[in-house]
Amino acid sequence: MAVDGERMRATWEAMAAIGATPAGGITRLALSDVDKLGRDAFVGWCREAGLDVRVDDIGNIAGWRAGDDPKALPVVCGSHLDSVARGGNYDGVLGVLAGLEVARTLDDRGVRTRRPFVVMSFTNEEGVRFQPPMMCSGMLAGAFTREAIDDVQDSAGQRFGDELDRIGYRGERRNRLDRLHAYFELHIEQGPVLEANDLAVGVVTMIQGLRRARVRFTGSNNHAGTTPMDARRDAFMATAAFALEARSMVRDFPPGMLTIGRVVLDPGLPTVIPEFAECSLDIRHPNDGALATMLARAETIANDVACREKCSVDFAPFWHSPPTPFAPELIECIAAAAQRQAVPTMRLYSGAGHDAKYMADLAPTAMIFVRTRAGRSHCEDEYARWEDCVVATSMLYDVVAETAGARAEVPA
Amino acid sequence: MAVDGERMRATWEAMAAIGATPAGGITRLALSDVDKLGRDAFVGWCREAGLDVRVDDIGNIAGWRAGDDPKALPVVCGSHLDSVARGGNYDGVLGVLAGLEVARTLDDRGVRTRRPFVVMSFTNEEGVRFQPPMMCSGMLAGAFTREAIDDVQDSAGQRFGDELDRIGYRGERRNRLDRLHAYFELHIEQGPVLEANDLAVGVVTMIQGLRRARVRFTGSNNHAGTTPMDARRDAFMATAAFALEARSMVRDFPPGMLTIGRVVLDPGLPTVIPEFAECSLDIRHPNDGALATMLARAETIANDVACREKCSVDFAPFWHSPPTPFAPELIECIAAAAQRQAVPTMRLYSGAGHDAKYMADLAPTAMIFVRTRAGRSHCEDEYARWEDCVVATSMLYDVVAETAGARAEVPA
Repeated sequence: MAVDGERMRATWEAMAAIGATPAGGITRLALSDVDKLGRDAFVGWCREAGLDVRVDDIGNIAGWRAGDDPKALPVVCGSHLDSVARGGNYDGVLGVLAGLEVARTLDDRGVRTRRPFVVMSFTNEEGVRFQPPMMCSGMLAGAFTREAIDDVQDSAGQRFGDELDRIGYRGERRNRLDRLHAYFELHIEQGPVLEANDLAVGVVTMIQGLRRARVRFTGSNNHAGTTPMDARRDAFMATAAFALEARSMVRDFPPGMLTIGRVVLDPGLPTVIPEFAECSLDIRHPNDGALATMLARAETIANDVACREKCSVDFAPFWHSPPTPFAPELIECIAAAAQRQAVPTMRLYSGAGHDAKYMADLAPTAMIFVRTRAGRSHCEDEYARWEDCVVATSMLYDVVAETAGARAEVPA
Repeated sequence: MAVDGERMRATWEAMAAIGATPAGGITRLALSDVDKLGRDAFVGWCREAGLDVRVDDIGNIAGWRAGDDPKALPVVCGSHLDSVARGGNYDGVLGVLAGLEVARTLDDRGVRTRRPFVVMSFTNEEGVRFQPPMMCSGMLAGAFTREAIDDVQDSAGQRFGDELDRIGYRGERRNRLDRLHAYFELHIEQGPVLEANDLAVGVVTMIQGLRRARVRFTGSNNHAGTTPMDARRDAFMATAAFALEARSMVRDFPPGMLTIGRVVLDPGLPTVIPEFAECSLDIRHPNDGALATMLARAETIANDVACREKCSVDFAPFWHSPPTPFAPELIECIAAAAQRQAVPTMRLYSGAGHDAKYMADLAPTAMIFVRTRAGRSHCEDEYARWEDCVVATSMLYDVVAETAGARAEVPA
């Protein structure tokens, strides 16, 4: 292996201790005290590795390794250090620390590159404490303004901007990394495909498309004991029928997915027929046309169900993220690196969103996936074999060296 | 009419102003400042009517009108003055003020009775702020201890006992009205039966039985974008299937009812497949055997659905309130009064619980129902025609006079 798996593991274990949960996961919510500790550790490691740390005005941290050509745009490897509540130790973290290990390996080998190389940690990728996800890569790509992000509040009413100032990670606007040559992100798959194919590593060709909607049924709140079944207008029963029928519909669009993860009833009392029921709707597909058809069919189902259940419905799509194809030349570059290292791989698409989604708006982008046990992620039993992580990092080293224009390599 | 409908209406309008909402309803939650104002008004009217006001140690207010026989147990008319949030002006209030009007009418007519007559306002019938409902009639019947009730907390963590002390309605234990000759409660139907039968008033024969359960499905929380549909264990989809199948099942048991009014998902995020989904289950039927069969079939459905959806389920019944038959002699007494007054009526059962449910454990009990528009209750558009209220109150006067042993009647 090009990289030093043991050194990288020691760094990873030190990070895993910051916000560790009793059940072996981490809780490192964006802009929390624990996030600050994680950032401090990362910044310290960057400086030890001789990187020039530059923090932008939204808290994204970039560790720069100079290139020989002062005018050349950098090659960037990034991901994020924040986690969901009771999350795992691989999601995000692995990509950031793999980038750091690439920088260390370049030094080990005495490799100079024409282009600068940057290790990047994006603020608040998860979007758990402050919504939406991928907020700060999104800002670089122009999807959100800094002012809007600063005003986002968490559930306790704390402002993003105040919390960023509080933990001391408000950097400078001129440090925004919005011009780059190429972006790579190494990440766990968070799905079952690589494991099912008995492969350690995969080459990611795209991020599938996503549509989100709020679906709100309105019935009539009435007494659970006095309203005959046939006289009811029950917003929850309408929601239940919608959920099951929409799920059936999705089977016509493989490999499409549909999730209803949030349901809120009003008044929400055991003895009152729900007047309002609002649910989230998350639909995903790698094909944008299929995605549009799925959304339209979900709306038809909602209307049919509302009619049958004597309710009304407000079907409100509010987010469309089209599929994001990655750069063919970078996909080939990763595949070639795997071949050179005799690592069997497959091509697959990403079911989840990543900072790579927004970075793809700025520069050619691609991702490397690492096999994830049982497809489990965003939970404390998230797990990837360390040898798989090292293989993927070694491939990352190879593609960075090539893309950044490695000029000399002196074995350590 | 025996009673003075205009006088009663003026009293009713004065009460309706206490906690009035902009949309024409009331919010008079138990032991709130508004509840105190309502109590103060009621106590004042009782005293004006010459009643001896006795408050017990849980805040139930009794207005006593003396009988000729000092040893005779009283005839009691009661209901409650508290409301749900944004409730209506008839539920509970009407029964209390009808009792007061009966006392005034007895005086108008110079009627002495052998037995004392008591107008009763029970604390916290609704069980909205402090659960469960019918708490303080329940205490008289021995269903709850005063100590347990004092410790019940509202959602803000305020204790029942502290709030009762704060509003100044902690009376004396010796004022508990747990020995009585008969109990009558006049109440709006809160259902559609009388309206459908074009009748102003109904004679209530029983309160139907009720079973409650918590149903908790456990699946696996996983990523909405990376978990293939066939690999999911979705606790919400299981809940949706359970809800629809349980509702279908209930059609085999007319006039049974089934309500799922509360559903809580965990983690409850749009992008995460729900790991846990807990719902309330409320099943009602006038026949206790049918009720037991419905509950058993709901449990079978829950288990079948869990198996099919690769989830587990915890089906936890926690409350069984058997049907409460009312006293045949009081039912006949009410029916006879209607006949004397040439008021067409029907017999029907109560779908909802009332303080009469617990009072029936202490003494012969019956109820009079008033037609409710569109069966709507627990909401601001709850409505009953005033002439219907007056007809029912006039019947109530008649049955009280008879049951309490009216000894002389001098027309005013």
